[in-house]
Amino acid sequence: MKDLIDCAMKRQPCDLVLKNARIFNVFTGETEYGEIAVKNGRIAAVGAGYCGRIEYDCKGAFALPGFIESHVHVESSMLSPEEFARLVLPRGTTTVIADPHEIVNVCGIAGAEYLREAFARVPLDVFLQLPSCVPATPFETGGARIDGERTATELAKDTFFGLGEMMNYPAVLAGEEDCLLKLASANSCGKPIDGHAPALSGEALCAYAACGIATDHESLTAAECREKAARGMYVQLRVGSSANHLRETAKAVDPFNCRRFLLCSDDKNARDLQTRGHMDDALRQLVVCGVSSGQAVCTATLNAAECYGLKDRGAIAPGRIADIVLAEDLNRFEVRAVFKRGKIVAEDGKTMFSVSQSVPDCVRDTVKIQDVCADRFRIPVKSGKVRALQVRPHGLVTDEIVLSVPCGDDLHLQGTDLNKLAVIERHRASGNIGLGLVKGYGLHGAALAITVSHDSHHLVVIGDDNARMARAAMLLKEAGGGMAFVSSEREEVFPLDVAGLMSSAPAEEVIARTETLDALARGAGVKDCYEPFMTLAFLSLAVIPKLKLTDRGLVDVEKFAFVPLEVTEEI
Amino acid sequence: MKDLIDCAMKRQPCDLVLKNARIFNVFTGETEYGEIAVKNGRIAAVGAGYCGRIEYDCKGAFALPGFIESHVHVESSMLSPEEFARLVLPRGTTTVIADPHEIVNVCGIAGAEYLREAFARVPLDVFLQLPSCVPATPFETGGARIDGERTATELAKDTFFGLGEMMNYPAVLAGEEDCLLKLASANSCGKPIDGHAPALSGEALCAYAACGIATDHESLTAAECREKAARGMYVQLRVGSSANHLRETAKAVDPFNCRRFLLCSDDKNARDLQTRGHMDDALRQLVVCGVSSGQAVCTATLNAAECYGLKDRGAIAPGRIADIVLAEDLNRFEVRAVFKRGKIVAEDGKTMFSVSQSVPDCVRDTVKIQDVCADRFRIPVKSGKVRALQVRPHGLVTDEIVLSVPCGDDLHLQGTDLNKLAVIERHRASGNIGLGLVKGYGLHGAALAITVSHDSHHLVVIGDDNARMARAAMLLKEAGGGMAFVSSEREEVFPLDVAGLMSSAPAEEVIARTETLDALARGAGVKDCYEPFMTLAFLSLAVIPKLKLTDRGLVDVEKFAFVPLEVTEEI
Repeated sequence: MKDLIDCAMKRQPCDLVLKNARIFNVFTGETEYGEIAVKNGRIAAVGAGYCGRIEYDCKGAFALPGFIESHVHVESSMLSPEEFARLVLPRGTTTVIADPHEIVNVCGIAGAEYLREAFARVPLDVFLQLPSCVPATPFETGGARIDGERTATELAKDTFFGLGEMMNYPAVLAGEEDCLLKLASANSCGKPIDGHAPALSGEALCAYAACGIATDHESLTAAECREKAARGMYVQLRVGSSANHLRETAKAVDPFNCRRFLLCSDDKNARDLQTRGHMDDALRQLVVCGVSSGQAVCTATLNAAECYGLKDRGAIAPGRIADIVLAEDLNRFEVRAVFKRGKIVAEDGKTMFSVSQSVPDCVRDTVKIQDVCADRFRIPVKSGKVRALQVRPHGLVTDEIVLSVPCGDDLHLQGTDLNKLAVIERHRASGNIGLGLVKGYGLHGAALAITVSHDSHHLVVIGDDNARMARAAMLLKEAGGGMAFVSSEREEVFPLDVAGLMSSAPAEEVIARTETLDALARGAGVKDCYEPFMTLAFLSLAVIPKLKLTDRGLVDVEKFAFVPLEVTEEI
Repeated sequence: MKDLIDCAMKRQPCDLVLKNARIFNVFTGETEYGEIAVKNGRIAAVGAGYCGRIEYDCKGAFALPGFIESHVHVESSMLSPEEFARLVLPRGTTTVIADPHEIVNVCGIAGAEYLREAFARVPLDVFLQLPSCVPATPFETGGARIDGERTATELAKDTFFGLGEMMNYPAVLAGEEDCLLKLASANSCGKPIDGHAPALSGEALCAYAACGIATDHESLTAAECREKAARGMYVQLRVGSSANHLRETAKAVDPFNCRRFLLCSDDKNARDLQTRGHMDDALRQLVVCGVSSGQAVCTATLNAAECYGLKDRGAIAPGRIADIVLAEDLNRFEVRAVFKRGKIVAEDGKTMFSVSQSVPDCVRDTVKIQDVCADRFRIPVKSGKVRALQVRPHGLVTDEIVLSVPCGDDLHLQGTDLNKLAVIERHRASGNIGLGLVKGYGLHGAALAITVSHDSHHLVVIGDDNARMARAAMLLKEAGGGMAFVSSEREEVFPLDVAGLMSSAPAEEVIARTETLDALARGAGVKDCYEPFMTLAFLSLAVIPKLKLTDRGLVDVEKFAFVPLEVTEEI
């Protein structure tokens, strides 16, 4: 503190002085031309006439506080933490609130520990939430289980920043004991609780907010955003790879309520991070949607800092951590340089630090399945009537379709618009395989397989031929997880060596390999309205209507119950 | 939590439902017509169709969150905590951040304990800051001493909410070790630090803010407010009995920066609290100054809650404490009823709770002085030149005047415009008496004495006759502190039985008795531009320029040194 005072008072030279900056002030909305004086990673002063051991000429660029990503599942990038950091830091992101929901569902707390250790090697501050829904539903064989007691124990330690998005809102509204214990433990430690309340409104929204759940990122309309803000929740405007309703949700922002809005990406893939950007992209889009530049900057800085009680950041002001982004302007937010704790970490899109990756054993070799032969994919039909799921275009919601099919020992799909879908339990090699049918996916003469499948991340296979499906599954068993394509001409595998979810390869390779696989799947007929592998990854998420498949069978999400593949009763 | 959910979902009746309210939403700035459902002292829901064991018809009144007073020295009201609460609760104040700077300077930590216990008996939440400047200056014999080590020990406990206003900004800027230890201990416990930075600007303001000092209430101009806000401080707009620059400072508030502004009274006497009000008065004045009603309400509610990390209040929203004010409108803020934690505590200006006062021994009989005779007030003069202090009209700043006077064993004041001023050490009966001269106060043929004298609260006497001054001092010794008037015709004493600072009498009596004493003093000639007793109470505060008197002698505040009463060198 003495050093900061001495530097501010010019009795001591600073470590770094940013000169000739247009410093945007998130408290006043004004821009001051001047200098930012930095000592020991903190901002000592904003002013003029400072000298430092390093003096950086900003050449009139805008200086903004480092961006805060308020809610993301890093695993969705399929990148290692180190590679994720390498992509987002040059985009101006210096702080991330991450919910390691995916890897914890596979590896338990050890998965979060891995992320924590990996992020500690890069100049990015990542605050990890303890996932609140492990497993996400009672319909699947989870890789891990974190109940209320365990949640209380973990939150009492310093390791987790807060409680991750409480997706199980039905349990909250029903007042289920184990769920309330999780919420109460976060509240009693004064730790933030993230929410997930799609379309919740009125009494239900009040009940949900009354539990101290502070945020929500699921709003699709301006009215939904406004109601959540009115009930005291922070609204996280989501700019993700698939989910992006900013054109609607941004309409909710006005000068009075804007302090209650944050930005998040939730799920963003490596390609989008590489080509479009991260928080810089979200800011750009927000301004295009008509939000003023000043208000937009606050959503990615001060507002997020306030929401999460991070008093040490979110502004360029004395005493705060020197996380600073230099941008060309306040419309396109093209990032010229990024400083993290007073050290330059990126310039002109390139990172300026090196890091050696390390993947511990606890997150490797996590795909444990029994050998599967083609016969395991047989679907015998007795009644002549089966239910199939059909995915709505450009979305994750499915409809249930009932079809008449020939009876027999197996259902042959050649010449139909159907694919077989299998979810193979992959945590305990239990041999569980859930089987179902998908209508209209378009895949012909090939099988796709992936070990990313929300939220328990079993091995999902789709295809129209039992042998190719078995082959695809076995390829992923050998690879320790990943993505596979199998046709009569070609076999292609991209291993996801970290928990079967993420690759330790460089981002460029992850992007290229996933593009290759997507292209092969498209070549085999997958329709344009679907993401060949990523749509697949959500077909076992039994919290989104209507019909989903887990390793234990088909789930009718609305009835919240298993249903058989064959339709025997009247429906 | 289960109860709150069940009430919000209408599965259980509420404890209280406020019906037909115009509910002002501090998040959106909008007003909703509807109901507030309350359970276990918390808000379960905002909506319609709720039923409760008690249903209160608001008849269309505006419902606002309970007001938060962000910085006050309760002792300045001269009221006991219970009586203070009785005056401010009907005005809508439900939460107070109090700095017990006065009583702790007299009684040490025990003084704060007394306040804490007394406030626990009334339905008002008072968060006590640990005073940071005890004693305030090195020039006086303090009643207590709290150094950096002690500060660290006290802040590590749960008892104090944060660190009280750091008035010793020269020590901060100089980086004095003991001072920085206080700041660092508050920061390391994550507790808020209040500031006091009159006219601080530029580098000095940066240095001060860099220490994590979060607030300031000393700004006199809009420019000063704006600069403090820009450096990340919360600006507390002060509406006190003497200090009120709202007409200037309110100009600083705009729609972008308004979230950084709070309201406080700092020092407000009982009469003003009774006749003008408290936070309701501040709100009324703020709106008159041109700040929108919505922004104004936020300064007294959400903004203060955010500043101090009080996530459980500051808004009418699910999960928050049910502190609710019903007001006729959003311009005059006439308070109709006040609910504290879901219970009605005031209606139409009357409190609806009873409380029995209790004053513990530790804050009684605190005025310890030796017997003083008239001779102790003799001022022998050798040089023929003395310095006198002259108080600027309507203020606390003094100027130093040098006067030629006759030499002799004592200075006789009859026929002059001078009074004698004495500061009698009153904590240890040391016999210390500081003597000085005041020009232009106007007092003739009488002596005034008071044991409120910032910040060490010695016994201050002013008069033009040694015998009457001695008599006034002895009357206060007998009374255990208070205010005294002595003339040849009349003796009047109002005891301040609590630490010599506050009275345990009802507010109405405190107001009447102080008015009587003021009237007597006016009758004895005290000029209209001074508050007869209160101006006196600041003549020993050696942090305000220019010449002040402590029990150890005259202090030149600008030179930060003692000076003799007689002028011997050339000046």
